[in-house]
Amino acid sequence: MQISELGEFGLIDHLTKDIKPQNASTVLGVGDDCAVLSYPASQVLVTSDMLMEGIHFDLVYTPLKHLGYKAAMVNFSDIYAMNGHPRQLVVSIAVGRRFQVEHLEDIYAGLRLACERHGVDLVGGDTCSSMTGLALSLTCIGEAKAEDVVRRDGAKVNDLICVSGNLGAAYMGLQLMEREKRVFESKPNNAEAAQPDFSGHEYLIERLLKPEARKDIVERLAKAGIRPTAMMDVSDGLSSELLHLCKASGCGCRLYEERIPLDYQTALCAEEFNMNVTTCALNGGEDYELVFTVPLTDHDKVSAIEDVKVIGAITKPELGQLLITRDGQEFQLKAQGFKAF
Amino acid sequence: MQISELGEFGLIDHLTKDIKPQNASTVLGVGDDCAVLSYPASQVLVTSDMLMEGIHFDLVYTPLKHLGYKAAMVNFSDIYAMNGHPRQLVVSIAVGRRFQVEHLEDIYAGLRLACERHGVDLVGGDTCSSMTGLALSLTCIGEAKAEDVVRRDGAKVNDLICVSGNLGAAYMGLQLMEREKRVFESKPNNAEAAQPDFSGHEYLIERLLKPEARKDIVERLAKAGIRPTAMMDVSDGLSSELLHLCKASGCGCRLYEERIPLDYQTALCAEEFNMNVTTCALNGGEDYELVFTVPLTDHDKVSAIEDVKVIGAITKPELGQLLITRDGQEFQLKAQGFKAF
Repeated sequence: MQISELGEFGLIDHLTKDIKPQNASTVLGVGDDCAVLSYPASQVLVTSDMLMEGIHFDLVYTPLKHLGYKAAMVNFSDIYAMNGHPRQLVVSIAVGRRFQVEHLEDIYAGLRLACERHGVDLVGGDTCSSMTGLALSLTCIGEAKAEDVVRRDGAKVNDLICVSGNLGAAYMGLQLMEREKRVFESKPNNAEAAQPDFSGHEYLIERLLKPEARKDIVERLAKAGIRPTAMMDVSDGLSSELLHLCKASGCGCRLYEERIPLDYQTALCAEEFNMNVTTCALNGGEDYELVFTVPLTDHDKVSAIEDVKVIGAITKPELGQLLITRDGQEFQLKAQGFKAF
Repeated sequence: MQISELGEFGLIDHLTKDIKPQNASTVLGVGDDCAVLSYPASQVLVTSDMLMEGIHFDLVYTPLKHLGYKAAMVNFSDIYAMNGHPRQLVVSIAVGRRFQVEHLEDIYAGLRLACERHGVDLVGGDTCSSMTGLALSLTCIGEAKAEDVVRRDGAKVNDLICVSGNLGAAYMGLQLMEREKRVFESKPNNAEAAQPDFSGHEYLIERLLKPEARKDIVERLAKAGIRPTAMMDVSDGLSSELLHLCKASGCGCRLYEERIPLDYQTALCAEEFNMNVTTCALNGGEDYELVFTVPLTDHDKVSAIEDVKVIGAITKPELGQLLITRDGQEFQLKAQGFKAF
């Protein structure tokens, strides 16, 4: 169906008509000049991310439903990174003329699945034309008790640096996708080339196309009675995030290469591409894991949390931000993460 | 200066470094995964708008500072339309390769001027590349006491329909700009053509490029002790907004052509373009005035408010949504407003 058949308001109605807000904090959802929220007892967390076709995603290998899902996750991840919980999502989408209603339905299917899984209400939508590529801009609103909010500036000397999950997998997934795209483009009439074989790499592809924001880690930290001293999500790469955290907290760090969590597929794939797997893990980005610091006294508690690993320690600022390699050499950490420009 | 010299984080630092939050509700501004806000005693209003180059604005005749100013105003206007006050703004900007740091400084200068004038804190920014045109996505957060929030669904039979300011001026400004653009493009080497003469039309140009959200009207309504039963801002055109308001409130309306407020320049310019000025006022859009309904008993109070005019009345739904012309004919109102597609 052509979007023009529905018009802007018909389209928004069509995409949002059976959305029913679930959170007590959502007073009024889609359908007025503003959404109305109520947060009498919590602090309100706000984050916004823009995703541009050709910069942040490539429609050649990004299904629209996955794109919607990922766009939501990227925003939820920023809320979890403050030790909060996402509650509302506002979505703006600009689409080119080749887009039809069904394309937007696919994006919304992904957005809604993400919202359902994380208990988030879709409370607003702006949909308009783009002269060129697809643009998505999402704003997520979350909440946390004032005493629970974790910024990036609270790390203290001797704190332990921890990270959830594993790193570098999304980056290797991107390398695989880019390789398949080149193969496909070199043989446009070859039907087999259109059916790439990712067997043995499924996990890497999923990490790229369908990342999961770590709600579970925030819940486990709370259950373990741990309030991190500082926290960020890993969107640009561990090196970049750690440098931000150290700068904001006015401290140094020692990060141990041998402690960096890697998936087996990531390591194999890096070898296949003749890449250094540590470099991929440090600078790959788009992992959407959580990196956080806890007091040394929380060592046993944090070590007992499933899927969390201690990877280093916070030091005095004059010691710098260092990577300690497997053979004991020290290197200054560098931010070589995702470049938005 | 090239944006790549600063990088993404350097650029955001550069653009936001001397921004100091002024509102008590802003706990933490730019610089972490999220902004942190506190609204223990108010409801939180959230609105988001996306502006795409070539759809919502034309850089040929839109100075970047004005664009930033207008983008902010468009969002503030949605908050005023709920009878609230804007407090925080989050800004995402995607720019093409031809953009330099100075261009972004201009956009931010406009954003910041708008924020200063309306007491709003800029609390977050995402800046990235675009493969193509400029894209702006803003989210504004505002507040209102629960009992003060005005939706679009509260209009009752016999309520008066009121509008602030005057209508159709921005639309005539757009016609002037489009005409100048055609003249300019037909004589690319003519320096005089690059200096259009808008004398006598300054007000129309200003209404297009530098609209003012009606904070003053919300304040005057409060001072007069009036809480509108329904309210919207006029972004797509009066007809379109009134139809939305009537649909949400389940009612009809009678709008009197002779009561529609027009500026002298709008009327003159419509004549010059051989356009029906009422059509321009009803469907032009981008006026960012407020249209609202008040109980009949507030007639004297609302009539005494400066720059507000009673333009019609709410009726039973079966009577339809009607325009009553100067000669007493009745026409069904039609939404011919700004088409986003």
